[in-house]
Amino acid sequence: MPMRRLCLLLLSLAAPLFSAPAIAAEPLVVAAVDSPGKVLRVELSLDEGRIAWRASRLGEPIVAPSRLGFLLRDAEKLERNFVLVEQHTSARDETWQQPWGENRLVRDHHVELRARFAESMRAKRTLDLVFRVFDDGIGFRYEFPQESATDVVIDDELTEFNLVAPAATAWWIPAGEWNRYEYLYQRTPIEQVGQVHTPVTFRLASGLHVAIHEAALVDYAGMWLRRVEGTRFKAVLSPASEGWKVRRRAPFTTPWRTLRVADTAAALYESNLELNLNAPNQLGDTSWFKPAKYVGVWWELHLENSTWATGPKHGATTANTRRYIDFAAENGFRGVLVEGWNRGWDGQWFGDGNDFDFTRATDDFDLEGLAAYAKQRGVHLVGHHETGGAVSHYERQLGDALDLYRRLGIDVLKSGYVADAGQIERNDGDGLVHREWHDGQWMVRHHERVVREAAARHIAVNPHEPVKDTGLRRTWPNWVSREGARGMEYAAWGNPPNPPEHEVNLVFTRMLAGPMDFTPGILSLMGRKQPLKSTLARQLALYVVLYSPIQMVADLPANYARQPEAFRFIRDVAVDWETTRVLAGEVGDYVVFARRERGGDTWFLGGITDENGRVLDVPLAFLEPKRRYVAEIYRDGDDAHWRDNPFDFVRETREVGSADTLRVRLAAGGGQAIRFVPKR
Amino acid sequence: MPMRRLCLLLLSLAAPLFSAPAIAAEPLVVAAVDSPGKVLRVELSLDEGRIAWRASRLGEPIVAPSRLGFLLRDAEKLERNFVLVEQHTSARDETWQQPWGENRLVRDHHVELRARFAESMRAKRTLDLVFRVFDDGIGFRYEFPQESATDVVIDDELTEFNLVAPAATAWWIPAGEWNRYEYLYQRTPIEQVGQVHTPVTFRLASGLHVAIHEAALVDYAGMWLRRVEGTRFKAVLSPASEGWKVRRRAPFTTPWRTLRVADTAAALYESNLELNLNAPNQLGDTSWFKPAKYVGVWWELHLENSTWATGPKHGATTANTRRYIDFAAENGFRGVLVEGWNRGWDGQWFGDGNDFDFTRATDDFDLEGLAAYAKQRGVHLVGHHETGGAVSHYERQLGDALDLYRRLGIDVLKSGYVADAGQIERNDGDGLVHREWHDGQWMVRHHERVVREAAARHIAVNPHEPVKDTGLRRTWPNWVSREGARGMEYAAWGNPPNPPEHEVNLVFTRMLAGPMDFTPGILSLMGRKQPLKSTLARQLALYVVLYSPIQMVADLPANYARQPEAFRFIRDVAVDWETTRVLAGEVGDYVVFARRERGGDTWFLGGITDENGRVLDVPLAFLEPKRRYVAEIYRDGDDAHWRDNPFDFVRETREVGSADTLRVRLAAGGGQAIRFVPKR
Repeated sequence: MPMRRLCLLLLSLAAPLFSAPAIAAEPLVVAAVDSPGKVLRVELSLDEGRIAWRASRLGEPIVAPSRLGFLLRDAEKLERNFVLVEQHTSARDETWQQPWGENRLVRDHHVELRARFAESMRAKRTLDLVFRVFDDGIGFRYEFPQESATDVVIDDELTEFNLVAPAATAWWIPAGEWNRYEYLYQRTPIEQVGQVHTPVTFRLASGLHVAIHEAALVDYAGMWLRRVEGTRFKAVLSPASEGWKVRRRAPFTTPWRTLRVADTAAALYESNLELNLNAPNQLGDTSWFKPAKYVGVWWELHLENSTWATGPKHGATTANTRRYIDFAAENGFRGVLVEGWNRGWDGQWFGDGNDFDFTRATDDFDLEGLAAYAKQRGVHLVGHHETGGAVSHYERQLGDALDLYRRLGIDVLKSGYVADAGQIERNDGDGLVHREWHDGQWMVRHHERVVREAAARHIAVNPHEPVKDTGLRRTWPNWVSREGARGMEYAAWGNPPNPPEHEVNLVFTRMLAGPMDFTPGILSLMGRKQPLKSTLARQLALYVVLYSPIQMVADLPANYARQPEAFRFIRDVAVDWETTRVLAGEVGDYVVFARRERGGDTWFLGGITDENGRVLDVPLAFLEPKRRYVAEIYRDGDDAHWRDNPFDFVRETREVGSADTLRVRLAAGGGQAIRFVPKR
Repeated sequence: MPMRRLCLLLLSLAAPLFSAPAIAAEPLVVAAVDSPGKVLRVELSLDEGRIAWRASRLGEPIVAPSRLGFLLRDAEKLERNFVLVEQHTSARDETWQQPWGENRLVRDHHVELRARFAESMRAKRTLDLVFRVFDDGIGFRYEFPQESATDVVIDDELTEFNLVAPAATAWWIPAGEWNRYEYLYQRTPIEQVGQVHTPVTFRLASGLHVAIHEAALVDYAGMWLRRVEGTRFKAVLSPASEGWKVRRRAPFTTPWRTLRVADTAAALYESNLELNLNAPNQLGDTSWFKPAKYVGVWWELHLENSTWATGPKHGATTANTRRYIDFAAENGFRGVLVEGWNRGWDGQWFGDGNDFDFTRATDDFDLEGLAAYAKQRGVHLVGHHETGGAVSHYERQLGDALDLYRRLGIDVLKSGYVADAGQIERNDGDGLVHREWHDGQWMVRHHERVVREAAARHIAVNPHEPVKDTGLRRTWPNWVSREGARGMEYAAWGNPPNPPEHEVNLVFTRMLAGPMDFTPGILSLMGRKQPLKSTLARQLALYVVLYSPIQMVADLPANYARQPEAFRFIRDVAVDWETTRVLAGEVGDYVVFARRERGGDTWFLGGITDENGRVLDVPLAFLEPKRRYVAEIYRDGDDAHWRDNPFDFVRETREVGSADTLRVRLAAGGGQAIRFVPKR
């Protein structure tokens, strides 16, 4: 193999890349890259022509040699007989700005390794591997090069994550099952993990935290992870109805496979790995999107006080909607969502939404009049498109439906894909109904289409039962939120309901992906026939803890009227942030956030715990050093407990400064919310 | 039982004490007390006359009903047929000052419950139980009342700690074995704990941290803990040669049995529970004790470069000691320890120290001349009394030996009790040799005697192979440090040597008890025939991490001369602190401290990790808000690793302020030390 020998000769001149000691029986390391602070190191090796990657942190292995490659349809698998033909490293350190988000400024500081491999025999195909190594994580993707210019049909990825993580604890939800992402997170030994969605989070016996996910999922199938044996995981792509997983024409790139690595749960959350791996804003100025709170006809539906369907209990009536508009206007909330406003809800629609009409309201809902009334009161209707999973049907009306909203000043759209996993209805007009997955390539394309069509009309989107978040809000900043986990409605009727640990689990799993429209703020603490497993103060804290630039004020107006003191925090809390810090936290146990409002000096603190009470001494060092603040504290009363005393609640104020330490006391299933207002 | 009924009637008027719901088949709660912030709650119950205590935290149980009482010699056990005859609660919130310590000011904020129980039949003996409940822990003790005025001979305590801690992790060393406290700490499931010394530390599955220990061990036997079954532990008193464990004349009180409870490892460390439970300073002004660093003839003995015994390699010669005096004087270290200075080292002395003479020096050691030379150079000799376990022999010379030191200006004494556990030699002059334990009642009395005799002569004491620390430094502030764990000498010759996790384990176990004379600073990173499992920067960090008001600068002067840059930190670091904070840490994994020097504005940071490297973002919020500081950073180099690159080391300076966050990067087995000097 003269070609291979040449490559090795060339590469051996690049001495720094070969500093890893060659250990007998180890595969040959052909390329390596260190993170900017020399914290993480990735090495690529060839073992009889098979490419593998591995990673270490501060000199200790964290990923053992792990396979790379593809199973292809109608072509030999892309995995063997490779030689390295070219490699290049480059460094980047830049800070970019988010139009909205947890932080205004995001630093992207990484070293990139590009390595081109070519088959040494037969087809002589080439494959590029790109690794970006940050101090707090690793991203890598495959690039199918320009010159191939062929259709590539991927049956599956061979990508592995062979973790060095014996006796680790894992937090996960199953993938490839009937449900989408709406499971309770399980906390088990890593060896009990099966096939899971990402982000999946691990805490190693060493105390290290690792989360695997992906970034920039565009025109590709979502990645699941399957534990193969021990602590070795492999990528499994979400299915397509055709049998293969992905069909693309080269050149193209896969999404980034990502691995956050941090010593603390706080640092795991604070990483911006996936955002940094997404392409910059493609939409230009999106200042037409206004982060805001919204109310609406929603919780009453889940309580069965009213119905989506028309009839005597129809929720989306003109009169009822006017009441929500008034409530929003009186309290400074921007949006009013109305579910059930359009035609098509009267039959079975779960998994079968072909009756939905996205441009015509029910007879008892005066869409034009309400939009005008909202405008007059200074608020905006929030659009709603439930598809019931009939996505082809929805796509045919999409343009008209968005045009209607554009005309009426409706600039945020909540959509829904209520259908079981693998039950999305695709109808190509060929007389066949295809059944797709919520995170398969076809639905990934659908979401992109909706986001682009909406952006063209200056509408922001918030899909429920969505594909998971992979940081695309950076590229398309009108993709402002989504569901993709068990939200508040499971507190209303879930069996089992959300336990106190649920939202803490979310922070260190689901929320690593991005904003969630969880819809907090149920101050009645009462679901359909079951109480919430939450104290009152906790409902307030959720506004700070669970990030979304649109936050629902989800309870009934009448219930807020009964809790005027607590409701004050919901009115006051910001939704867009200059900066965010996790002050304390352990995965699944508790977390305390501090966030400063975007464009202001007011800070907010939110802390929640699981079924165990906590007492945490939190230095207020995030406050501006030379100022004094009035801390408006909304906390659990001394005898509060989610089980038998959830309404025990105290609002009190204290003057504080950055040198103070606050004792944050969280009841079992409790929380605490604080607004720090600078003194003038 | 009319008396009992009367009591219950009286008690039932005290309604708040009876708010716990009475659950069927649960024992009757007769008294209860909440901590000041209603974080911890203790309840006492009677079940057919047997007293039990239990505890909850924020409404969740942490200690299930646990037995109380005594097995007595020549009397019926003190456990059954009790009725509650009196109870009283009182609150205290006071802040007291330590003459030296981790913090100048200590807040004692607790609620005390005193409950008097009396036997309802036969002897009708009484027993008082006193609980002091803090937000961060619980202390309780037995009081044998005034009126009994009899000899009490205790065969064992029945005290239990019935933890609600399934699947907890425990850090522990065995008790009742051949060794004293000089084990490597084990990290195991709680269910694998056997009989252990205190402090013993648990991290519960809930994330809660618990440490059991005792406070104010005076004229009583040390408490071990034995796991009985599941997560139920019982007190086991250290043996006495007579067979019983404790002999006292009533009235007397037992030591406090203590339970620290905290959500974080940091808060577990920061608790002052045991100090608060000790009696205030009984010595008055102890400003004659000066916290200081010291050098001396010690590490060279452990390296076998020289010997304790006289002969050609004798370490404690006049000439050698003068060199150490010069080294100390040149570098501003106050003390010079000389081991092997006196007569009696030439034979076997391990466990047999009857040849030691504590007032006569060897022929090649000019004690008087060296004391004078030291004085002339502005330094002080540190005294040394090795007993080899022959304690009665030592006690006979104690007064004269301390008088000699007093006369020569030797004001710190290091003592030694090198003998296996249960091998201390006691000779009452009755022709019998009794064998006592290092932590039995007899040795507890011995240490008290030495401390008092030394205090009368203004001498501070630092015993090695001691009884454990139970916070008596508050009462007798001349008890300044001690050993009581595997120290640095195990790095020289231990088999196995101290692993990188050792000092991190110490912080959250042994160091909860109080100061340790660990003797850090081996910048050669080399033991007798084995390298240290440490980077260079870590040796510096240990001065901040492992608290003692006397800190040895333990390496050979020649080795410091080879590391002038690193040595600078050892010269500069303070030994007495205004305040101490744990900025980050997990038991057995890593820890980062910040401490401000007593009476000054300089801050120090010290961080160490186990065999895993760490990257921790540490807000510098502890710095004074309006000042700028020059941070003198002593850190692991980018490629440092304890195994193969321990000398990779960087000293650099940066200007910082309280609003900055510092990325603290610790190599595997590494550390970081920083001195923050305020800018003028």
